[in-house]
Amino acid sequence: MSHKKLINDPLKVADELVEGLVEAYNGDCVLVGQRSLALSNIPDGKVALLVGGGSGHEPIYHGLVGRNLADGAACGDIFAAPPPDIVLEATQAVNRGKGVLYLYGNYAGDVMNFDMGAELAGDDDIEVRTVLIWDDVCSAPPTQKNNRRGIAGLVPIVKLAGAASQSAGSLDELEATTRKAVLQTRSVGVSMSPGSIPATGKPTFDIDESMIGLGMGIHGEPGVAEIPMTTADDLTPRMLDLIFEDFEKDDEVEALAAGDEIVFFVNSLGSTTMMECLIALRKAREILDAKGLKTYDVIVGPLVTCQEMAGISFSVTRLDDELKRLWELPCQSVCFTKMEGRYGG
Amino acid sequence: MSHKKLINDPLKVADELVEGLVEAYNGDCVLVGQRSLALSNIPDGKVALLVGGGSGHEPIYHGLVGRNLADGAACGDIFAAPPPDIVLEATQAVNRGKGVLYLYGNYAGDVMNFDMGAELAGDDDIEVRTVLIWDDVCSAPPTQKNNRRGIAGLVPIVKLAGAASQSAGSLDELEATTRKAVLQTRSVGVSMSPGSIPATGKPTFDIDESMIGLGMGIHGEPGVAEIPMTTADDLTPRMLDLIFEDFEKDDEVEALAAGDEIVFFVNSLGSTTMMECLIALRKAREILDAKGLKTYDVIVGPLVTCQEMAGISFSVTRLDDELKRLWELPCQSVCFTKMEGRYGG
Repeated sequence: MSHKKLINDPLKVADELVEGLVEAYNGDCVLVGQRSLALSNIPDGKVALLVGGGSGHEPIYHGLVGRNLADGAACGDIFAAPPPDIVLEATQAVNRGKGVLYLYGNYAGDVMNFDMGAELAGDDDIEVRTVLIWDDVCSAPPTQKNNRRGIAGLVPIVKLAGAASQSAGSLDELEATTRKAVLQTRSVGVSMSPGSIPATGKPTFDIDESMIGLGMGIHGEPGVAEIPMTTADDLTPRMLDLIFEDFEKDDEVEALAAGDEIVFFVNSLGSTTMMECLIALRKAREILDAKGLKTYDVIVGPLVTCQEMAGISFSVTRLDDELKRLWELPCQSVCFTKMEGRYGG
Repeated sequence: MSHKKLINDPLKVADELVEGLVEAYNGDCVLVGQRSLALSNIPDGKVALLVGGGSGHEPIYHGLVGRNLADGAACGDIFAAPPPDIVLEATQAVNRGKGVLYLYGNYAGDVMNFDMGAELAGDDDIEVRTVLIWDDVCSAPPTQKNNRRGIAGLVPIVKLAGAASQSAGSLDELEATTRKAVLQTRSVGVSMSPGSIPATGKPTFDIDESMIGLGMGIHGEPGVAEIPMTTADDLTPRMLDLIFEDFEKDDEVEALAAGDEIVFFVNSLGSTTMMECLIALRKAREILDAKGLKTYDVIVGPLVTCQEMAGISFSVTRLDDELKRLWELPCQSVCFTKMEGRYGG
C-alpha cells in the first residue's frame, strides 16, 4: 500500500515545497535563483553560513535558515544534492564580503556539488570554507570519519554554528568553532519502516516486519545490525552505548565523563510519534543521569525526517564554555526555535 | 500491517510519555499526582490556565504547558478524557488563589470529567470557569456550536489565552478574551489514512485507499464528505472555502474581509510530511492573498496529531488589536515556541 501524499506534480514537489517554505517565513526569507532560500536582512560584513542538501527531509535543512541560525540554504531535488549552479546562487545571495562557510552532511553527491559551487564562487572572488557533518557513529569507525554520514546531529551543529556566525570576526574563527561543534556531536539512529519516494510511491528501503535496523541511515543505508523489534527500554541503552563507546574510542575527543554538560536530542524520522520519542527520552534520561552527565538542554521532535519513515535517533552534543554560551543565544526558524532561558523562566 | 511502535507496556504508554515530557521540560515542569503537568514557577496571584485531554495526540495538549502558555495540563489515557481526580489534582497544582480557567476541546467525555473536576475543586474553594474549543466547522452548523469538536485551532487559541493569562486581572477578564479567541478561530481537516491505537495496533478508522475524508475529525469522526483522492492544489481551495463560508454564515462573527489580519496554521495529523504541509501552504497563501487577507503569522507542522494518521488541517484565527498584542508575546513550550519579532529580525 503506497502512502497517500497530498502533492501536485510528483516531479515538482521540491520546487513547490520551497515556495511554501518562503510563505512560512512570511517575508523574512526570499527565494533565490532556482531553489535557494536566503534571509532578507543579512548585515553587511557578516561571515555567512550556508547549509543545504536534498529536499524531502523537512523541516531540515532549509527550515534552519533563520535568526541566529543559517543565512541561507541551497536545496536539491528530493533526496538529491543541490546542483553546483544552485549552490553558487545561494552563495552569492548570502555573501556579505567576509566569506561563506558551507555546512552540510557528508554525502558524496553533496560534497561533489558543493565543492564545484565553491569553485564557481571562487571565480566571483567569494572565499568559501567547508565543514562536513558526520555525526552518524554507525556509518564508519572513528578513524574513518570521512566515511561517516551526517544525520540528526546537524540540528545542534547548525544551531551552534549559526550563533557563532553572528559574532565571528573571520571565516577562520567560524570554521574553528563549527569544527568543534561537529567533533563533539555524535548520533545513532534506528529504523522500523521506510518512507516513500514522492515521485514513484516506492519505499526508500525494505526491512522485515519483525526487525529493526540498528544504526540505519536516514535513507535506509546499512547500520551495524538488524535486530528483532524490541521495547523502548531495551533499545534505548543499546543506542546510547554506541554513542558512549564512540566518544571513548575516538582519539580526537575525551570519553564522556560525569559532570560533562550535553544537549540531548531525540529525533523522529517521520511517522514515529512524539509519544514514542518521549517514552525513549524517559529511559534515556535515566541512563544519562546515572552516568553523571548533565543534560543542559533537550530537543525532541521530528526535525530530520525521511518522508513518513518510522525510526528515531539520539544525538549527544558535549558543550564547553564557548559552546554553552552559543547554545544560549535565542534562535528562530521554521525548524527550530529556542528562547533565552527556559520554559518557565 | 500494524505500525511498529517503539513502546514498552502498551497499557502504560500515557504514563510513560508524560514522564518523558517532564524530562523534555528539563526542570521547568513537574509531574503532579497521577498524570498532570504543571509549571514549576507559577507566580502567586496569577489567574491560572489549565488545558488537557486525551494523550496520544502529542505534542498537544500537555506540550502547550510553558512560558506565556498554559500553566498546567490534565492528561488522560490514550484518546480518553482525564478522570475527574486527575483534573482536580491539576487544578490544585496550578491554582494561585485567583481561580482557574479550563480550556479544552469539546468532546463529551472531556466535558463530563472536567465539569466533575470543577465541582470537586469548588469543594476546595477554587473558582473554575470553562471555555470549550469548537473550531471544527465540519462537525456541526454554526447554530449548533455545542456539537462542534475542537481540533487544531486549539494551538493559536491556547497561545492567545496563555498570553492573556499573564496580565489578566481576573478570571472574568481571561474568560472573555479566551472566548473571543475561540470565536475567531475556525478549522477544517481532511484525512487520508488512520493512526493506530497503541494498545491494540488497530487502526483508528477505515477509509478507502482511493478516498479522502473531507472534514473528518482527528479520531476519524465523520466530516462533510468522502471525496476521491486529489491534488494539493485542488483540495486547498475546497478546505479554505469551508472556513470562509463558516465565517459568512455565523451570525456571531463578521465575514472575513479584505484587510483582516489572520494567523494561518497548517497542521499535520501525524505522518503527513512537512513537504506536503508546505505545498498546501503555498497554494493557501495564493488564495488568502487574493482575498485581501493579511497573513500576520504562519504556523506549520505536526502539532495536533493522532498517532501516525495521515491528514492535514487549516486553521484561521482573525486578530483584532487585543489579540494581535497577545499574539506578539513570546512563548516557549515543547509544542510551540515563538520569539518576539520575526525570523530575521
